[in-house]
Amino acid sequence: MAVESVERLVGQGPPYAHRHGDLALARRRPLCKPAGPSIQLREFTVIQRFDTGPRMSEMTVHNGVAYLAGQVAEDDSLDISGQTREVLAQIDALLARAGSDKSKLLRAQIFLVDLADFAAMNAVWEQWVVPGHTPARATVQAALANPKWKVEIVATAAV
Amino acid sequence: MAVESVERLVGQGPPYAHRHGDLALARRRPLCKPAGPSIQLREFTVIQRFDTGPRMSEMTVHNGVAYLAGQVAEDDSLDISGQTREVLAQIDALLARAGSDKSKLLRAQIFLVDLADFAAMNAVWEQWVVPGHTPARATVQAALANPKWKVEIVATAAV
Amino acid sequence: MAVESVERLVGQGPPYAHRHGDLALARRRPLCKPAGPSIQLREFTVIQRFDTGPRMSEMTVHNGVAYLAGQVAEDDSLDISGQTREVLAQIDALLARAGSDKSKLLRAQIFLVDLADFAAMNAVWEQWVVPGHTPARATVQAALANPKWKVEIVATAAV
Repeated sequence: MAVESVERLVGQGPPYAHRHGDLALARRRPLCKPAGPSIQLREFTVIQRFDTGPRMSEMTVHNGVAYLAGQVAEDDSLDISGQTREVLAQIDALLARAGSDKSKLLRAQIFLVDLADFAAMNAVWEQWVVPGHTPARATVQAALANPKWKVEIVATAAV
Repeated sequence: MAVESVERLVGQGPPYAHRHGDLALARRRPLCKPAGPSIQLREFTVIQRFDTGPRMSEMTVHNGVAYLAGQVAEDDSLDISGQTREVLAQIDALLARAGSDKSKLLRAQIFLVDLADFAAMNAVWEQWVVPGHTPARATVQAALANPKWKVEIVATAAV
Repeated sequence: MAVESVERLVGQGPPYAHRHGDLALARRRPLCKPAGPSIQLREFTVIQRFDTGPRMSEMTVHNGVAYLAGQVAEDDSLDISGQTREVLAQIDALLARAGSDKSKLLRAQIFLVDLADFAAMNAVWEQWVVPGHTPARATVQAALANPKWKVEIVATAAV
């Protein structure tokens, strides 16, 4: 897993999980001690970023949730089906890097440049999602930064 | 609570909470053992999905947060006030199934087909929200998948 | 930190952290007791709201995540650069009140009224973000509630 940057947001005591060499573990597990007179909790929370550039990261992961950037097609000459396939493949690739996958999607916000593409986008989408594990979703029409893009999808997933 | 699908994302040891027959409990509580030489943490994280179809779920719940799909009116012949009322009633119904309610809304993204409906939508909205417990909100104009729909609301809430 | 409202969503036993006078601590730390025959977990989850009005709050914080309302310029006579600067300053101010900052942004959804403003908005944005700590981002075109607004940004951050 290529993690470009990891930040310790909260850290009391030694970075416990680092000593165990298991960052993924640390990210999800609050480390606890027994409640009582001598209670002393240890925790730290991290943000992981992927493909971090000067403007944005393609994905951030925090507290067991992956926040993906809006994904658009690399090949903007493709039709709506082709662009949707590329977008979904990019989501697959990003989720894999976070140790997640499309069965763990929580929500997708879909922006279509032309709602006339709704059926064609859905046909590709429904082939892609995992039956029984579909995310919450919302689709609206909006112009995108590159006039040749036809669809942009903003995905949120559990990791 | 009708939970259509529950996934164990992380599971070490027996699914502890299941033995206690309290899934809702398990979803929110990391199960911990004392820190120390013999520390051994148990945790599993679940995604719950509601009204899961081949395209989307109407709601997913993960880590104490409910992610609702964009809600639109069942009766698309209604005016903006009527459609807004239907949308908010659907949000109420979904949140109730997750054991939450509108006082726990974290954010609402509102898409209006015509910003001329802003005041009428707000009048219904402000009657609906719980004073002192209003969510973060953003409203923009966007065309929706069904041309008769006038408003779509994407809600996120604590459960 | 001005917290307008804090809710105890789940509370078994005395509100532990309150006794220690450290709400921020309580918000992030599940309080645990040893697992075993006598296991008895304590936890409560809170929602914090900031600038809560009858329609919306400017920010809600839950489970270590800040959900900001869509931020728009106070001075709607400014050009895109000026409005973007104002929006980003408002995000800075809100994040500071939650004990966070722009280096902890998880995602930004940007709505531009005119995509012709994309480059000018980005120039201000790229001066503002923290190198190496940029969030996931998505930008689409959408009309906003006030016709003089040129940009609205919906930010999500770790706290």
